[in-house]
Amino acid sequence: MLEISDVFNAAAVLKNVARLTAIIPAPKVNNEAEVYLKAENLQLTGSFKLRGAYYKISQLTDEEKARGVIACSAGNHAQGVALGATHNGIKSLICLPAGAPISKVEATKAFGAEVCLVPGVYDDAYARAMELQKEYGYTFVHPFDDEKVIAGQGTIALEILEQLPDVEAVIVPIGGGGLISGVAFTIKTLRPEIKVYGVQSSGAPSMVASLQEGSISHLNEVNTIADGIAVKEPGVNTFEMCNKYVDEVVTVSDDEIAAAILLLLENQKIVAEGAGAVAVAAAMFNKVPIKGKKVVCLVSGGNIDVNTLSRVINKGLNKSGRNHSFIIDLDDKPGQLSGVCDVVAQLGGNIISVTHERINSSGSINGCTIRLELETRDHDHIESIREAFTAAGYKVK
Amino acid sequence: MLEISDVFNAAAVLKNVARLTAIIPAPKVNNEAEVYLKAENLQLTGSFKLRGAYYKISQLTDEEKARGVIACSAGNHAQGVALGATHNGIKSLICLPAGAPISKVEATKAFGAEVCLVPGVYDDAYARAMELQKEYGYTFVHPFDDEKVIAGQGTIALEILEQLPDVEAVIVPIGGGGLISGVAFTIKTLRPEIKVYGVQSSGAPSMVASLQEGSISHLNEVNTIADGIAVKEPGVNTFEMCNKYVDEVVTVSDDEIAAAILLLLENQKIVAEGAGAVAVAAAMFNKVPIKGKKVVCLVSGGNIDVNTLSRVINKGLNKSGRNHSFIIDLDDKPGQLSGVCDVVAQLGGNIISVTHERINSSGSINGCTIRLELETRDHDHIESIREAFTAAGYKVK
Repeated sequence: MLEISDVFNAAAVLKNVARLTAIIPAPKVNNEAEVYLKAENLQLTGSFKLRGAYYKISQLTDEEKARGVIACSAGNHAQGVALGATHNGIKSLICLPAGAPISKVEATKAFGAEVCLVPGVYDDAYARAMELQKEYGYTFVHPFDDEKVIAGQGTIALEILEQLPDVEAVIVPIGGGGLISGVAFTIKTLRPEIKVYGVQSSGAPSMVASLQEGSISHLNEVNTIADGIAVKEPGVNTFEMCNKYVDEVVTVSDDEIAAAILLLLENQKIVAEGAGAVAVAAAMFNKVPIKGKKVVCLVSGGNIDVNTLSRVINKGLNKSGRNHSFIIDLDDKPGQLSGVCDVVAQLGGNIISVTHERINSSGSINGCTIRLELETRDHDHIESIREAFTAAGYKVK
Repeated sequence: MLEISDVFNAAAVLKNVARLTAIIPAPKVNNEAEVYLKAENLQLTGSFKLRGAYYKISQLTDEEKARGVIACSAGNHAQGVALGATHNGIKSLICLPAGAPISKVEATKAFGAEVCLVPGVYDDAYARAMELQKEYGYTFVHPFDDEKVIAGQGTIALEILEQLPDVEAVIVPIGGGGLISGVAFTIKTLRPEIKVYGVQSSGAPSMVASLQEGSISHLNEVNTIADGIAVKEPGVNTFEMCNKYVDEVVTVSDDEIAAAILLLLENQKIVAEGAGAVAVAAAMFNKVPIKGKKVVCLVSGGNIDVNTLSRVINKGLNKSGRNHSFIIDLDDKPGQLSGVCDVVAQLGGNIISVTHERINSSGSINGCTIRLELETRDHDHIESIREAFTAAGYKVK
């Protein structure tokens, strides 16, 4: 049984290792609540995972340490274990699915781990880790279903209570449930009047399903941009603790997550990964009852591939009417493109790219198609440009 | 004459307005120094400018306040003045060049200012602000060459000394020089042994040129991605203070700035604008003598247009060999593209985009050209893919 003294002990162990991350006001998230961020994306390794992994490793017996540790992860846990092991002077071996982003593989190596790339997906990497553990006797560090790991994540709650004592609700991402178990246990033990809400991606709602059914439920498939919380089933311990300590668990969609990532980037100047942004998405889109309350959204990590970030930015800009692509059929004769550009310029749009394509199987033999990508102000601006094209005689698709 | 008591007074006024921004360890910036960031990009309004503008406005006489304030800015100062005026219950009018990014115009309005878009560039907006000031009697809030503004920026130095008392050097961006004047004055007054270095963009080195000549020098042109410090000449006060208090001023290139923005994004999970990243660029590329020292890089702001950020990400990935475009001449017959893709797949590259173009004025009549954009590990990886293409008989341009 996890005791609150474990969480205090973890805080003492982590004092000179984990950063005391900032609490940052976030007024644009929801204008009917007073929202703050606990910025664990600014944590060493770019995510909270370091806390649990480091504390777990620090508590191993000398004999366990001597055998070295093994873990399986496609991301943040890998970096936490690697750093925790290296700091404690022991060997670590991390199994990663071969398709893991290059940046995460490199970061894991940089923290001193040996990396084993396993063909296939996460489950294959997990199976291989289990084989290797049996074969060589490594100590396995579970990413979430472990009391020491949970105690380590609980230290975040101690910091929140210290940094913002009059907080009324805390919103926390859920993948396997290690983070929220630690946070909810700590908060409900010390300050039971504070609400704790959990958030999953609607593409991977394993804890939501399990809580509804009253027992651990296994998803056959998960599909979400929040890869850090794409977990098929909760742990035995974490399921029980969520059932006992968490007030409510809700879901957010990938579009909502993308909008939250963009808001954090533009208004808060911080980078969140998909999993890191779900609590903010829940607050933005009123998934939890926070009206009039002082609320902390836990931004759990920032390890998003920059190529993915580029795509999220574009999607977010698109959704909010800040850029738009027009496809226009033109006669293939001089002056046509110039006329189109004039329309855009007169209405204050900014052309980002032009693709002009003469081969056009559907149109007339003398026709061509242009695709015009514009930076725009909002949806009204887009409409006014569309109307101007039509008024000038251009065929907008 | 600026007194240190002004800076302390500014700190008192700003106590419940400006955020106490975090000092964040940044181990990847330079492995021979102990580097920290003072994250003023996480400041309210996304930049330090709020401090000076707010303090200046708070110190106006009632008569001056009654007349309302006017300012000219393409960005951060605009938002600082708008918020400062609105909080103090007075009217603000901001002149912006008509080409200013839509996001900055909208943000300025959102903080309660009236916005006047002036056709042309910054200088035109400035001239218009001067006309309006004369015509209507508004109080002009200068973006940097004003003692109250400088005192407000100096409060950052008080925070740094409090948060990291054993700091040995501070690196600060320079545009007009208001920020570094406040910081250097405060540090040299209280802790003269701490070094203060200034950084300009090599595309806008007005303070560097002025210090070399020993008098204020005017640049006819400035050209840099760090638009926040693209200033043609320093102020009278700021030039004198830099001359007196700053140890050394250096420059960094646009490529170095882009690399710094990318490092902050990937490793620190924070968004910096070009001007905000120059101090980090100077530390990364050893422009200042920081070996073995405990150093703070001031990240002055994060208000970068997300479209620009996308371009910087791509440029940075490209420079570090993390993506690469190959242009390949192919015979226009079935199976060619498939063969090319096989080569990429075998070497673990990830295809981001393919542009296949049959019209090819330079090649043979049966030829076509494909442009293949790949996600790669590093420059060696790119070379091995190039060699594999050649070995398989493809003509790489």
